[in-house]
Amino acid sequence: MARAEGVGVGLVGLGTVGAGVAQVLRENAAVIAARLGFPLRLVRVADLDASRARGVDLGGARFDGDADALVDDPEVAIVIELIGGTGAARRLIHRALERGKHVVTANKALLAEHGREIFDAAAKAGVDVAFEGSVGGGIPILRSMREGLAANRIDRVVGIVNGTTNYMLSEMEATGEPFAAVLARAQALGYAEADPSFDVDGVDAAHKLTLLAAMAFGADLTHRDVPTEGIRGLTPLDVAAAREFGYRIKLLGIAKRREGPGGEERIEVRVHPTMIPASSLLAKVDGAMNAIAVHGDAVGPTLFYGAGAGRLPTASAVVGDAMEIARAIQHGSPGGRVAPLSFLAEALRPRPLVPLAELHGRVYLAFSVEDRPGVLGEITSALGAHEIGISSLLQHRADEGGPVPVVVLTHPAPEGAVRRALDRIDALPRVAAPTRLIRIEEDL
Amino acid sequence: MARAEGVGVGLVGLGTVGAGVAQVLRENAAVIAARLGFPLRLVRVADLDASRARGVDLGGARFDGDADALVDDPEVAIVIELIGGTGAARRLIHRALERGKHVVTANKALLAEHGREIFDAAAKAGVDVAFEGSVGGGIPILRSMREGLAANRIDRVVGIVNGTTNYMLSEMEATGEPFAAVLARAQALGYAEADPSFDVDGVDAAHKLTLLAAMAFGADLTHRDVPTEGIRGLTPLDVAAAREFGYRIKLLGIAKRREGPGGEERIEVRVHPTMIPASSLLAKVDGAMNAIAVHGDAVGPTLFYGAGAGRLPTASAVVGDAMEIARAIQHGSPGGRVAPLSFLAEALRPRPLVPLAELHGRVYLAFSVEDRPGVLGEITSALGAHEIGISSLLQHRADEGGPVPVVVLTHPAPEGAVRRALDRIDALPRVAAPTRLIRIEEDL
Repeated sequence: MARAEGVGVGLVGLGTVGAGVAQVLRENAAVIAARLGFPLRLVRVADLDASRARGVDLGGARFDGDADALVDDPEVAIVIELIGGTGAARRLIHRALERGKHVVTANKALLAEHGREIFDAAAKAGVDVAFEGSVGGGIPILRSMREGLAANRIDRVVGIVNGTTNYMLSEMEATGEPFAAVLARAQALGYAEADPSFDVDGVDAAHKLTLLAAMAFGADLTHRDVPTEGIRGLTPLDVAAAREFGYRIKLLGIAKRREGPGGEERIEVRVHPTMIPASSLLAKVDGAMNAIAVHGDAVGPTLFYGAGAGRLPTASAVVGDAMEIARAIQHGSPGGRVAPLSFLAEALRPRPLVPLAELHGRVYLAFSVEDRPGVLGEITSALGAHEIGISSLLQHRADEGGPVPVVVLTHPAPEGAVRRALDRIDALPRVAAPTRLIRIEEDL
Repeated sequence: MARAEGVGVGLVGLGTVGAGVAQVLRENAAVIAARLGFPLRLVRVADLDASRARGVDLGGARFDGDADALVDDPEVAIVIELIGGTGAARRLIHRALERGKHVVTANKALLAEHGREIFDAAAKAGVDVAFEGSVGGGIPILRSMREGLAANRIDRVVGIVNGTTNYMLSEMEATGEPFAAVLARAQALGYAEADPSFDVDGVDAAHKLTLLAAMAFGADLTHRDVPTEGIRGLTPLDVAAAREFGYRIKLLGIAKRREGPGGEERIEVRVHPTMIPASSLLAKVDGAMNAIAVHGDAVGPTLFYGAGAGRLPTASAVVGDAMEIARAIQHGSPGGRVAPLSFLAEALRPRPLVPLAELHGRVYLAFSVEDRPGVLGEITSALGAHEIGISSLLQHRADEGGPVPVVVLTHPAPEGAVRRALDRIDALPRVAAPTRLIRIEEDL
């Protein structure tokens, strides 16, 4: 691994992103060497599925199914893990770290669950773990938070971090179609998996938000700490009503620093469909694109936009990470220069979380009621009894004989009070279906 | 400078941004130390104007007017230059580099003119020069291009990089007022200088574009290579017509990779008011904010948004730079890890520039003609004679007896042909004033 020979890279997992990594390393070899001063060489590739090597130009790199041998190969200084999941990938990464190999991964599920364990092992081994591709695809958001905005106390991070659901919401808005029809199309186009729950139920977004919140606040948390709601429950009515009220609906990951009742610092983390002002930059993020808004005390509002997934955008982040590590290797100083989660391990700590009931904001409520006189009065008085003010109300036309959709925007109110009012409302005999609630964020 | 004591910083220039740097270092000392593992200590401040230290809490740092002594102070490992300009700042930076001190600066004018000289001196001395604050204020755009997007061949960079003019254009649009009225208000509010030419004539934007183009393409250029046009010539009619046609006018810095007639690589750099689709993200960037869109071959379109100037946003970038250098010092490996202009010095080279006459695109033309029959025909036939097609034409009402404004959007055409047609048109007896041309960019 002398200067002229460059730094050797091994790639485990030759799926979509893995093939993109091989392509970028090959096609952009000249620009990479012009930036580094030496080549980044793909020396070995491992995938259990031998058919995947067909049609991918690996530039002469050895290909086989033996990931362990790849990790052990003395030519491999950096192991790129693109297997995904929390099983084989976790074991492989630990093996690499134990052997003093640096690791690049885009595995948000693994890091959201076992990040601390992996970062601690890397620190112990004196090697680097880089994971820019795990959040926001090709957007250099983690590097920006960790280094570019490092002088800031971060106050909030609000992001569209799942391209599949953003595509689906954009489509629901453009076509007026229901969730199921849009999902079917997203699946046909390859934007959504056969089992779409990871995306549409917000799990993937919660994984990414976990990493963003850890880096923003030095919070030691896992995705299980993130209250998560997906987009399955959204109806064309909700999408249309949002537009009428001057909003758009986005699946957001939200992390905020808050002060608790006794003045202590707490954090608020959540993933859910959210109404945001149509004039905001985040509302303009359409299709499968991602964007993350970060607010720091010195820098103020910032926003980072780009493709949140996909073969080449994710490869851009993965190869960028490998270049940074290769630079440090050649510079004679890899390992631990920058804390992977932006704060030193000893500064990371569990933070008290704000319960959802203590959120305080405006909400959209969609009621489904029988078309009888007096029912609106029952609803508004139930809201009033919990001191929830109404700022707008739209009553839509009922389908022939069916229940009447009534949608309401409230004034800011504690979510606990709203939930108590909804419990009472949903128990009313003339309320035909559970009320849908969508939170509104104005402060982006 | 042992670990517990941290790294010592000296600050030269206690103006707006300098005071912000002192504030961030003081107020965010805890979060900075939690990220670095050691403190970043402001040990010394120099400014010839002693009154500037009043009202700024320097946290016990020594203050005097002796910048040279600050540079020579053994306690100072990193010199932050915030004097500005190309005279004293240049001399001071060289002095610091010669003494093995690392330098952080936000001085785009200096780097756009003498960047190569300074970077070469830093390389020779084995120290770092960081300059994130020089472009896009607090937006970590340089770091993102240099590291996050390093695996890409960058195809184009298009940015709103001057907050003053973006504020003024937003105001012209919101109020319909002419340039002069909006400039007076911007000056009263402190957004524009008493001598506003640096901002409104596009010079500041050209400085920033020079750095962006160098980093994007490995181009060795100075701001004198950048054809630059400011916003003085814009009228309320232009702003209103842009809106009618579905565009907004922004002062853009544009840098693109292009293929020359013989297949050789050329670059296109320019700063001018530009009509961009109202639906684009850049069009939504209002007020004094900045945004830079970068397109890479792997990552695709990205956009970076934030405050482009100001006390604390710029301080965020400056302190972030100092933190990165301090990290490398403590890690035992400062100096030259990353090429300052993203490409190694030996890979930077002058690139052939595309002449403006060879631009090929749609343009907006605003004619001022006498209200007589036939004059429109003369104009359209002059355009036709140069094979310039018209896609839209609006004739506005004349002021009583005054010339009639006629605005036209062309089909894509070579700018050389358009200029030749305008030479002919502007010589027509019934054309009352030189035609205004605004370029249109759809590909953002």
